[in-house]
This record gives sequence, structure tokens and C-alpha cells, in this order.
Amino acid sequence: MKCTIGLDFGTNSVRALLVDCRNGEELATSVFDYPSGHQGILTDPKNSHLARQNPADYLEGIEYTITTALSEAEKAIPGFNPADVIGIGVDSTGSSPIPVNAENTALACLDAFKDNPAAHCWLWKDHTSYKEAAQITEIARKERPQYVAKCGNTYSSEWWWSKLWHCLNSTPEVFDAAYSWVELADWVPAVLAGVKNPLEVKRGVCAAGHKAFYADEWGGLPDEEFLSMLDPKLAALKERLYTKAYNASETAGYLCEKWAAKLGLKAGIPLAIGEFDVHYGAIGSGIKEGTLVKAMGTSTCDCSVVKLSDDIADIPGICGIVKESILPGFYGVEAGQSAVGDLFKWWVEVVCKGEGKTHKEFRETVQQAKPGAAGLLALDWNNGNRTVLVDQRLTGLILGQTLHTSQAEIYRALIEATAYGARMIIERLEAYGVPIQTIVCCGGIAEKDPLTMQIYADVTGRTMRVSRSAQTCALGAAIGAAVVAGSGNGGYDDYDSAQAAMTGLKDMVYTPIEENHAVYNRLFKLYKDVHDAFGGVCTNDLGHVMKELLDIKETQLN
Amino acid sequence: MKCTIGLDFGTNSVRALLVDCRNGEELATSVFDYPSGHQGILTDPKNSHLARQNPADYLEGIEYTITTALSEAEKAIPGFNPADVIGIGVDSTGSSPIPVNAENTALACLDAFKDNPAAHCWLWKDHTSYKEAAQITEIARKERPQYVAKCGNTYSSEWWWSKLWHCLNSTPEVFDAAYSWVELADWVPAVLAGVKNPLEVKRGVCAAGHKAFYADEWGGLPDEEFLSMLDPKLAALKERLYTKAYNASETAGYLCEKWAAKLGLKAGIPLAIGEFDVHYGAIGSGIKEGTLVKAMGTSTCDCSVVKLSDDIADIPGICGIVKESILPGFYGVEAGQSAVGDLFKWWVEVVCKGEGKTHKEFRETVQQAKPGAAGLLALDWNNGNRTVLVDQRLTGLILGQTLHTSQAEIYRALIEATAYGARMIIERLEAYGVPIQTIVCCGGIAEKDPLTMQIYADVTGRTMRVSRSAQTCALGAAIGAAVVAGSGNGGYDDYDSAQAAMTGLKDMVYTPIEENHAVYNRLFKLYKDVHDAFGGVCTNDLGHVMKELLDIKETQLN
Repeated sequence: MKCTIGLDFGTNSVRALLVDCRNGEELATSVFDYPSGHQGILTDPKNSHLARQNPADYLEGIEYTITTALSEAEKAIPGFNPADVIGIGVDSTGSSPIPVNAENTALACLDAFKDNPAAHCWLWKDHTSYKEAAQITEIARKERPQYVAKCGNTYSSEWWWSKLWHCLNSTPEVFDAAYSWVELADWVPAVLAGVKNPLEVKRGVCAAGHKAFYADEWGGLPDEEFLSMLDPKLAALKERLYTKAYNASETAGYLCEKWAAKLGLKAGIPLAIGEFDVHYGAIGSGIKEGTLVKAMGTSTCDCSVVKLSDDIADIPGICGIVKESILPGFYGVEAGQSAVGDLFKWWVEVVCKGEGKTHKEFRETVQQAKPGAAGLLALDWNNGNRTVLVDQRLTGLILGQTLHTSQAEIYRALIEATAYGARMIIERLEAYGVPIQTIVCCGGIAEKDPLTMQIYADVTGRTMRVSRSAQTCALGAAIGAAVVAGSGNGGYDDYDSAQAAMTGLKDMVYTPIEENHAVYNRLFKLYKDVHDAFGGVCTNDLGHVMKELLDIKETQLN
Repeated sequence: MKCTIGLDFGTNSVRALLVDCRNGEELATSVFDYPSGHQGILTDPKNSHLARQNPADYLEGIEYTITTALSEAEKAIPGFNPADVIGIGVDSTGSSPIPVNAENTALACLDAFKDNPAAHCWLWKDHTSYKEAAQITEIARKERPQYVAKCGNTYSSEWWWSKLWHCLNSTPEVFDAAYSWVELADWVPAVLAGVKNPLEVKRGVCAAGHKAFYADEWGGLPDEEFLSMLDPKLAALKERLYTKAYNASETAGYLCEKWAAKLGLKAGIPLAIGEFDVHYGAIGSGIKEGTLVKAMGTSTCDCSVVKLSDDIADIPGICGIVKESILPGFYGVEAGQSAVGDLFKWWVEVVCKGEGKTHKEFRETVQQAKPGAAGLLALDWNNGNRTVLVDQRLTGLILGQTLHTSQAEIYRALIEATAYGARMIIERLEAYGVPIQTIVCCGGIAEKDPLTMQIYADVTGRTMRVSRSAQTCALGAAIGAAVVAGSGNGGYDDYDSAQAAMTGLKDMVYTPIEENHAVYNRLFKLYKDVHDAFGGVCTNDLGHVMKELLDIKETQLN
């Protein structure tokens, strides 16, 4: 038996998953909650946009989870030997860049910077750089339209250059001290491979292409002239970043002696190129052309792939269409919703925080209700809108309330709002020629929330299938490791054969109920009207309202 | 010492107030909670529009409250004698019509009808007749535009003809059994006067003019041809209603022997013409030309008066401009908001119903917040919009939420929403020439909620004053009684002198804070944008959204 390990760096914790390469069976797993900050996130009560993470938590988590998973497997599986592990794959949230020194050490791990939030990892959901994002969008639209065309014509505050630039603007001492910056997904394999020079870190095309304007067409990262328009220091940084990024058929490096000893693994086993969690999650869900994979958790990511030989248009409002960002040989197409589980959590934990209010109770209360029977309509924008508006500066909306409207009814309206958002994405992809024959869902909601899944089926009119693995991201990373290990070592030579052997679907299937779908078609039309009016995509619109409210809010909080 | 009694029939209870005619001092009071239904209201779990009241509760309440107040006064005030009571005034909610038989007995008090909700009093907030209201609006706009011009060009489901017609359509057996219909405010004085024939009930011009299309210009109630367009049976009913309605300088009758004995009062003392609660409340708050009186409770009523000699235009969206409906010699101008305290109550009791969530706690949490600092904006339409849109089929809206938005922040946003609604009314009145030099507030919110009062001052940029009496409606009814008693009996010969002696203001005054007002000016502009879009009063609007949601809701609930 040969196995691989998938390491999955999430928003609040890291997980190691030990997988049997023959059939994808998950032999052992271990989770480590990041100890720093609030649920692993460093926040700032004065700035709700700020979300950072302590890189030391990652290192501690690698050791804890791998050694724990291995020792559990040794206990549970007769004949299991850690020497059977033939590779490690890594996925993480992103864009989550880390400032590092010339030895590839995270600045936050140095005494001089350990208390400076800017020296830590800039977690994907950090939105402090929204002004820089708007400026990058403006400059790129004018000067380098080809750059933003691939990412929905709008650059996000969640992404690489916005964050680096905001660091330069807000905490120049950190920016100046950083020799380079590395995405979390690239940093971990490099650390495990013992890479001591940021210039030698093998970067994944997933993060590079989706978040940092990297593309073969223009020779890699953005040109220096463009970066100088943002700030000459960003242009100067370019030569300390990278010139080439790699797809997931590449090896990021080989496990170094030091980490091999720490983890109890064989030194020299290959490390797969890092990808973002949802991309390896798409692989773990069996993504192929014609299949949309929806990773449904706190937020949602929707992935599809299109053959490199196919002509694929730019799709307005789609976060990214990047060559080989998911699967080698295919364009990766990524869309997403900024708050899904987080939206339900907000309602339950922040608003309805009284005793005894739980997701389960709300679901039981409203699961028998007919669509539209509460007369409510909501927008799913409490954390902005990623697709198709690509606008962090949008906010939530609930309408239709009477004096009888209940907690549970609003809870259901929020679920429906995210389902309408999901349908917007599907319709946009199809309108631009991305084929969707099958939808496979993974993540906590797909696993545990039949009401939401049925509503998604009813709203979209599509059958919702669920990935067999409950840990598709880590499984995908483990599949990546099996591919870089190769068939000669007990792995596979390509993703097609690896996915065929190691992924599958659950028996449970959510099929649309036609009478509900008919009502949701009417409601979705109203959702689109309100979406377009407040999203600023129709004439004579209300697109200014949410933005002016945020302007006033910022003035009043300062 | 001469005294009068004001009887105030509210939504959940009736109050008797014994008042010293010399200075308005409130000598004794007693409250009786209606025993029937839920908090005195008969409801229907299958029809949230339905709200009825048991007329027997009114009769029981009169006896209980007057005898209790008198016996307390006898105990507390040396030398007080019930024979010093020189008159009774009555105010009530409205339009609250009661079907009666030929003896002026409420049908609900007869065994045959006691279990039929349609035979009870149709409480003001009963909205079952919204379809009839829409039809009346449509027919009147086309056939009798002068009728609807005086009530904002839209007839409400809260009003007389909608309710009578809906009774005819939905429960014809009750309509057919009703010899006549009498407004609660008219029915109580008639009962106390021993009037046994509905044709002899002296009707007040307040209810008639504001709710039943009554005006001198067209000779009283609507003509039979118009009523026939609704239903010939309504036309046939007309001759069993009334031909003349009276202002508050008139006597409705004199206390009959039977009720005098029951109450321990002198028979033959005058009963003032009944008016709606807010109208007598306006009198009890010292209304005069240039003064806007805001009665702020579960809903809000805004009253002003304009001299009969002045030329007063129709004001679009104003519920009613009726000759002498408040003060003799003046037009009464009435506007209002359908949910104010009810909106806050919805948030606290229906949504945030967990342990320990109270109005007080929410207020304490948000009272120091700067305007706009939560980034929220709400519409105050959970119970429809009375002024200036006159549309029951509008619903609530909250926008600007993030994943951090708290219960208390939304609570404050709802307060602000009602303040914007209040400002819409003020601006509309002034735009059409109604002078507003002074604003006097009364009711529970004015008495007990300094945060809301300050927000109203800040949003409107106006000083908010508070009426001295906490029971302005009952006080106004008592003033009406003092006027019909006349100076010869220890009362007054006109409202001017009665109000001067018997009303006053509290010391507490809410003055606008200029920096808050400046921010609220920006927020109010956004409120107006959203108000106009969803209210359907601008081009390319979203006016269809709430209505289609309600259509879908009704379909799905049936």
C-alpha cells in the first residue's frame, strides 16, 4: 500500500489527510486549530477589514497534524508504515501572501516583527487594501486592459498586488524589510523542501495566475512599467519575486532531511506544487470538462475547466480564467460567492444570539415552508460580491419584512439569497460557453445541510451531487502528490487516472422539485432586478446607495 | 371644582381620565385591558390581515374605568364629588366600524353572531379589505376624483367603505344582518346617551370626513351612483347611515339615566362628539395653526390645522384634509406612519426574542454611536406606508449589513428609518403650504424614549417638544367635554380658551445636534432614493418588487 498526504490550510485550522493511492480511501486525518488571534485570525477592533494569520501557526500545525495522522494510521492499520508515504501535496486559502526575508523566513517569525500585523500572513479575507484594489483596477483598465480582462475586469482587495501595495502604503517598514513575498500555498512546500531562498521557491500558476496578473502571454508577472505606475518600489520588488510559475504536474521540491526527521517520513519524497484549497478541492471532487465543482463553506468557490485548445472568451465578472490553474492541460475557471456559510452564521450567531437559536432549529422550522411564502427577498452581499459584480464594497439587503416576519424566515431568505447568487454564476458561465452538464458540491454545506442543498437544486433547476470525500481539498492535494510521485512509485502519471481511482460521488443526490423551481424562477427575476439596481449594472440605478453608506460609515468611524 | 372625563379607546385597552377643568390637572385615571382575543384583538392565524375587537369589551371597560377613577378621586381628593363631573368626551381608534342592528346593538353582542369575527368591531389595523381598497381607489380616481383627492388620491384598507364592502363580499350574512354601521368613536357616546336607533347617532365629522368620503361639498356621504359601482347593497345601505356629521363643538347627546346610574354620575351631562384618538390627542397637545402634533406610539399620527379661510391645496399622499375634523373653524390635516413603535417591537420581540434583549439594552448600546457609523439604511414599511405613499402593500427593507452588523445596530437603523419617514411627512406638508413652526410630540415614545426623540430632532433638524400630559387623547376628549359643557357649567365656550387653560408642554426639549443633522441630511437623501425606487414614484423603478413578492406569498400560502 502506497499513500500520500494532503495538507489543507484553511481559514481557522490546518488538516492532514493520509490517503490510500489505490482507491482514495482516507486512512487517517488530524486537524490543528491555529492558536493565534480569534479562531486563528488576527483582527483589529478598529478595522473590520483586517484579517491576518501567524505563520508560526502553520509550522506548528504541519508537525502536529502529520505526526498525529501517522501515529493514528500506525495504530489502526495493520502493516502501515510511514515509509509508505510517497508524497505530500499542499493546498491553502488565498491570496494569502506572506512577507519573508532573504532566507525565506516569514518576517512575523522574527522578534523584530512578531507584534506587527503587517508582517504576518495577509489572509485571503483581509480587505484593508480596498482602495489600492480600486486604483489597480482603474490603472489596469486604462493601461493594461489585458491584465484585468482575465479576472472579471476588476481587481480585488483580496488579491496579491492590492495587499503588497497596501502594506507599502500603510506599513512601509514591513514592506522595506521584506526581501520577497510568498503565497502560503507556495511557502509551505518550499519550507518542507528546505528552500532557503525566496527566489528558489517554485510558485504555483494557480495563485500567480488568479491573483497576481501572471500569464505566459505577457511573459509572467506584470511588466515593471505597469508596477511603477502603482509604486516604483513594487517594480523594484519584481526581480525578487519569480519569473515562472508551474502547474500541478510539477514537483515543488523534495522533503528535506530536517522536516523528514520532524515528521517521521522518508526524506526526498516529492512535494506537489501548491494550489488554492478550492482548486485541489475541485480535483478531489473529480473535476473535468463539463463538471462544475462548488466548494460550499463559509464562502463558496465554483470551479470549472475548459480544454486549452478551446477558444475561451473573457467572461465579465468571473474572478479568473487561468491556464492550467487547476488541471494541467485545461484553463481553470474560478467564480465564487464571498459569504455563504458566513452569512447564515452571521444571522444565527451575531443577530439571533439568544439562547437556543441554532442552524438546525431554523432549518427545521422553515424546511416545510413553500418557496416565497414568507414574502422575503435578500441579497447575499454581507461580505461583498465576488461573482459576477466583483465588488467588495457591496453590502447586505433584506426586504419584504412585515411585523410578523420571523428569525427563521429570514434565515431561509438568506439561504435562498446565496442560491440566487449561485444561479447568477451558472448562468454567466453558460452564457459565455463554459459547458455545465454536472454539478458536484463539496464542503461543509454539501455534507451537512440538506435544506440548503435542496434549495440550491430548486433555485437553479439543476441536480446537485455531492463529492464522496468530506475532505476534497486535502484529498486533491494528496492526488497531486500521487501524480508527482508517479506510477513507478505507486502513484499515477496523470490526473485523469489518479482522479478516476481516487475520487467518487456520494449516493445522495438533490433533484429539483419542479413546482418549487417554477416559483423560484419568479423570485430569481426579482432578485436580478434588485441585484442589478444595487449592483450598479442597470441604468437609473441605486448603485450609489451602498457605497455612499460605506463612505459615511468610514467618515463617522474615524 | 368642576371636572370632565375623557374616555380613550386604544388598541389594547380603554382609559378613563378625570380632569380638573380649571387647569387640566389629571385627578384620577383607570385603565381596562380588553379581555377578548390576544391583547384585546381577535386575530386569525390563517390571515395576518385580520384584526377585530369585541364590542362587549368596550361596554365593560366604560363601567370599570369610570367607576374606578371616580372612587379613586373620592379617596384621594378631599371634597371631590362625582356630581362635579360636567361632561364626558370620547375618543377611539379608527376607522373602526361596528355593524349594529336597528336598536344600535352591536351584532357581536347578539347570540347569533357572537362567534362571527365579521360581526365584531373592524379594528383600524384590520387590512383584510386591501383588494376592496384598491378597487375603490381605482373607481374613485376615474369616476369621483374629488373623493380621493382629499385623502392622498388613494383609499386605504384601514377605512370605512373598504371594510364594509369586504364584509359584504366575504361574510354577506353579517352585512345583510347589519341594519347600520357605526364608528366606535360615535357608537360609545350614542350608547351612553341611550340612543336606540342608529339613524339618531350623531356622527363626528372626523371619522366621516377622514375615512368615509364625507364632505359638505358633495352633500355628505358619497352619492348612491358611486356606491352602486362598488355594490348596489352599499348604495342601499346609505339611507341607513347618516346625512350630516358634526364637529367637536357639538354635543353628541346627554348621559342617559341607565348609564348615569351604572357609572355614579349625574344624568343629563353632555357628551362631546367623538373624534379619533389622535385628533383629540392633538387638542390635548395644544394644537393650533403652525403647530404639528405627532402622536408617537405603535404607529404615528401627525396632525396640523389650517384656518378654514385659507386656501388649502390637496396634498398628494396625505391621508386626509377634512373640514373641522380636529378643531372647529379649521381644516384638520392628518398624516401618519403605519409602524413606529410596532417596528421596534417587531425587532425586539419577534426577531431578537432571545433572553435579555430589551428596548432599553439596545438603546444603551447604540446611543453613543455616531449617525451612519453602522452603515445601515432601512425603510420603515413593515406595516405598509401610510404617508406619503398611501400603500399598505409595501414591506420592510434593511440594507448595508456586513458580517459584523449587530442586533442593536439594526434596532437603531429602524429608529432612524421612522425618523426619515417623519421627515418625509414634514417636507411634504411644508411643500404644500402647511406652516410648521412648532412640533409637539405625545404618546409613549415621546414620553419614554429620549434616544428616538433625539434622533428625530437630528434627522429632521427640528426641535422636538413634548406635551405635558401623558394622556393627551383622553385629555383632549375631556377638553371636548369641557367645551360642550360650556362656561356656564364650569367649562369653556371655545377650544382656544379651553386649550390655553388645560394643556401645556413638558420642560424637556430635544434640539438638533448640528453635526448629526449634517450626516443625516446625507443619509436622508439615500433614504429618499430607496424610498422612491421601491415606492414606485420614480422612473425605471423597483416599485414592482415588493408587490410581486406579496403576490407570490399569497399564492404560496393558499
